[in-house]
Amino acid sequence: MWTLAEIAHHIGGVVQGDEQYQVKGIATLQGAQSEQLSFLSNKKYKKYLADSSAGAVIVSSDMATFVAKHAIIVDDPYVAYAKAASLLNPIASSATGIHSSAYIAADANIDPTASIGPQAVISAGVTIANNVVIGPGCVVLDNVSIGESTRLTANITLCEGVKLGKRVVIHPGVVIGADGFGIANDHGAWIKVPQIGSVVIGDDVEVGANSTIDRGAIEDTIIANGVKLDNQIQIAHNVIIGENTVIAGCVGIAGSTEVGRNCVIGGGVGIAGHLSIADGVLLTGMTMVTKSIRSSGSYSSGLPVEPTSQWHKNVVRYRQLNKLVDRVKQLEIANKDN
Amino acid sequence: MWTLAEIAHHIGGVVQGDEQYQVKGIATLQGAQSEQLSFLSNKKYKKYLADSSAGAVIVSSDMATFVAKHAIIVDDPYVAYAKAASLLNPIASSATGIHSSAYIAADANIDPTASIGPQAVISAGVTIANNVVIGPGCVVLDNVSIGESTRLTANITLCEGVKLGKRVVIHPGVVIGADGFGIANDHGAWIKVPQIGSVVIGDDVEVGANSTIDRGAIEDTIIANGVKLDNQIQIAHNVIIGENTVIAGCVGIAGSTEVGRNCVIGGGVGIAGHLSIADGVLLTGMTMVTKSIRSSGSYSSGLPVEPTSQWHKNVVRYRQLNKLVDRVKQLEIANKDN
Amino acid sequence: MWTLAEIAHHIGGVVQGDEQYQVKGIATLQGAQSEQLSFLSNKKYKKYLADSSAGAVIVSSDMATFVAKHAIIVDDPYVAYAKAASLLNPIASSATGIHSSAYIAADANIDPTASIGPQAVISAGVTIANNVVIGPGCVVLDNVSIGESTRLTANITLCEGVKLGKRVVIHPGVVIGADGFGIANDHGAWIKVPQIGSVVIGDDVEVGANSTIDRGAIEDTIIANGVKLDNQIQIAHNVIIGENTVIAGCVGIAGSTEVGRNCVIGGGVGIAGHLSIADGVLLTGMTMVTKSIRSSGSYSSGLPVEPTSQWHKNVVRYRQLNKLVDRVKQLEIANKDN
Repeated sequence: MWTLAEIAHHIGGVVQGDEQYQVKGIATLQGAQSEQLSFLSNKKYKKYLADSSAGAVIVSSDMATFVAKHAIIVDDPYVAYAKAASLLNPIASSATGIHSSAYIAADANIDPTASIGPQAVISAGVTIANNVVIGPGCVVLDNVSIGESTRLTANITLCEGVKLGKRVVIHPGVVIGADGFGIANDHGAWIKVPQIGSVVIGDDVEVGANSTIDRGAIEDTIIANGVKLDNQIQIAHNVIIGENTVIAGCVGIAGSTEVGRNCVIGGGVGIAGHLSIADGVLLTGMTMVTKSIRSSGSYSSGLPVEPTSQWHKNVVRYRQLNKLVDRVKQLEIANKDN
Repeated sequence: MWTLAEIAHHIGGVVQGDEQYQVKGIATLQGAQSEQLSFLSNKKYKKYLADSSAGAVIVSSDMATFVAKHAIIVDDPYVAYAKAASLLNPIASSATGIHSSAYIAADANIDPTASIGPQAVISAGVTIANNVVIGPGCVVLDNVSIGESTRLTANITLCEGVKLGKRVVIHPGVVIGADGFGIANDHGAWIKVPQIGSVVIGDDVEVGANSTIDRGAIEDTIIANGVKLDNQIQIAHNVIIGENTVIAGCVGIAGSTEVGRNCVIGGGVGIAGHLSIADGVLLTGMTMVTKSIRSSGSYSSGLPVEPTSQWHKNVVRYRQLNKLVDRVKQLEIANKDN
Repeated sequence: MWTLAEIAHHIGGVVQGDEQYQVKGIATLQGAQSEQLSFLSNKKYKKYLADSSAGAVIVSSDMATFVAKHAIIVDDPYVAYAKAASLLNPIASSATGIHSSAYIAADANIDPTASIGPQAVISAGVTIANNVVIGPGCVVLDNVSIGESTRLTANITLCEGVKLGKRVVIHPGVVIGADGFGIANDHGAWIKVPQIGSVVIGDDVEVGANSTIDRGAIEDTIIANGVKLDNQIQIAHNVIIGENTVIAGCVGIAGSTEVGRNCVIGGGVGIAGHLSIADGVLLTGMTMVTKSIRSSGSYSSGLPVEPTSQWHKNVVRYRQLNKLVDRVKQLEIANKDN
């Protein structure tokens, strides 16, 4: 249980109502029970304020008069909710030390405050800093280094020599440092190009479930500080992702492409190789990027859903565009002749 | 070996020919050897009936006269084949009990009829019902509950508090309950929004290899009874999938979207967040869904493949559509003036 | 350290300069230090030749005069670089034998030269040939057979009965042989079609991280010799991929489709089921293939990225194509009447 005063202090807000009122969890406006804290960040949910059973609500100042019970008034209710939720739902601490069923190579260097879970594998030459958590079933291959307070949940693979910064969060099934897709055609047969670079992940990076980040061909693949990656993202060899860029699920970025800082990349986007994407670029979902983008702004491609029967017609029209242009040209010529 | 009478009884069909004829496996019409059972469900394969070596064939009544040998006549040969194949290829039973190399938390509650495979991890507070199979290398984190006869093949991760129904089948590499992609921009830096909801999976659900289903931000992500998911599907936080909906591989569904019942979603489809898809919607492969779909029916988007040289021309024409419309407008004005 | 003479011998080149000059690693032209070997395969990087600190450079004969220091002259610098990199960066040998934390079924047949890593699981009836490496956390289910010198890095799942050829390389998180997505609609409910085929992988195949290859419904899914698959590829049941075809990341191929030999499939491509793709087909990234391709050549689809404001306009124009065609028709009629 937390008092509103304690929460307001943590999130940088001001209590409207009883500062000593106690709440015991976060909920949505519609789902909240009394003694729960809710929030209003998207104004379209304002209609739920009046009927909400929430004991207290985080709101911006212009919404404060609409709150029936207690409120915490903040500048940015969504950020404040995130901070309050972190306060009320602390990450369960993991047992310090090495689980008896884990395998640890003799020369691995593991800080005594780290936690290594059941069935994990820590290979030769690995360095693990203080307060790191390596969850069950994770495999950390030779010479990986992991910065302080980084957490690997479960069933993750870090390949040889990968470097992770501090406070990184990696979700299950992620593979970092597998070989990039380097092949050379030797008279018809494809031979492997050894991938001798590595992957360097900065501080405060998050990587979603089953995403993959390949090691570089010669130099390293780089994910800068503060980058947030969703699930099932594929990042090819020698890609560089700039600071604080966020990428939604199912995105694929081909080799050697450099993505700027503070970009927002929507789900399912594909970016071809050897391109450069400027800082501050926003790409809407499923956009196909085949050339570099030199200035910030919002970019898109793709055709939105329509009834299949209409789609069939439009596809035909699209394919006849050339003919249509010719017909217009004929009309223009005829017009001139008149 | 099964007699045709036994199989016909199981699949609800009628034998044409020798009821005591014995078959020992299922095969395609072209691949079948004598003593094997085949089926004809797609009429375009009718041409293979005459030359098939199959000892018996499952067919609909209108095809019965074309079968050279024995037949089982049914209403729906594809469903009947599925049932016959299940009868002839029972799932190998797993050794009951806990493998010596598995790690089981002291307070996990595991039914004695369950099977826990090698190198598996069952964490604190987990409940596993009767006849559940947890395959090798699976990691089941704290407080997960798994309903009866559910099967996890191998290397699967179930995160904290996830609930699985009965007779669920989960394929390798699946991750259920990883954190949803919740971030808030706090003056330029992205901070994490704790994901305190969970995932609830109904009965008779199947989840294909390497698919991911994220836990909810506050409330739960929900997969209803009878949903079938193929491989490499990404389901974001707070998505709800209705009963008996089937989703093909490589589909991504963004956060808080609600998909109806009895939908069929083709491979590679992307659905944006906060949308609602009606019951009975069919989406063809690679469709981009950016707005809600309010009524059942078939929907599509995307441009089909063409030779690259043509594609280049069509892309140029597409980009000049605005100019083309202007040219037509000019012609219309000129025509009026005449 | 290797002399240029040794490297030239290995890659089939001729030394220009000191044959006894020694190098100790591969680097890019820009990143190289003295004593490192670099290469020039893409002529657009010629500008970096003069200033490179590389001790020696692999080049084609027409570039030889531009090399300031030592050179190895070859026909194909990229292939030669791949071979040199393999020579200078040999794969670390794995400890022969079975790690004490692995679980091996009593009747598994493992060659004494094979290496089985920590926490691996080798199930009943598995056959593992000489010099095979099974990395940490891999799960090899019943009756799998693995050919000589094949390497599984870590956390890989091979399902029942899968067959792998010789010198196959499988990256982490890969799942081979999970059930294909076979379902039949039995009066509204979907029932499972047992997947009783398997997967057969040829020699010299590479499979990228988190890719999935499903087992066949009745007959086998087949990946022919020399096929190279990148990360997060989904190959459905009964697909056949021809020899030496290469497939980039995030591609999905639906059931029963047959892809020819020597194809090159770009990232994010989707290919529908039951199609046939000829030998020597090149598909550019994100192409949507909904019909068979009967002859070799380059094929494409999709609309490239543009500013979102333009995209909105173009989408509207696309949707009005039908009306535009009608307007042109009206103009043509009016013109005729004049």
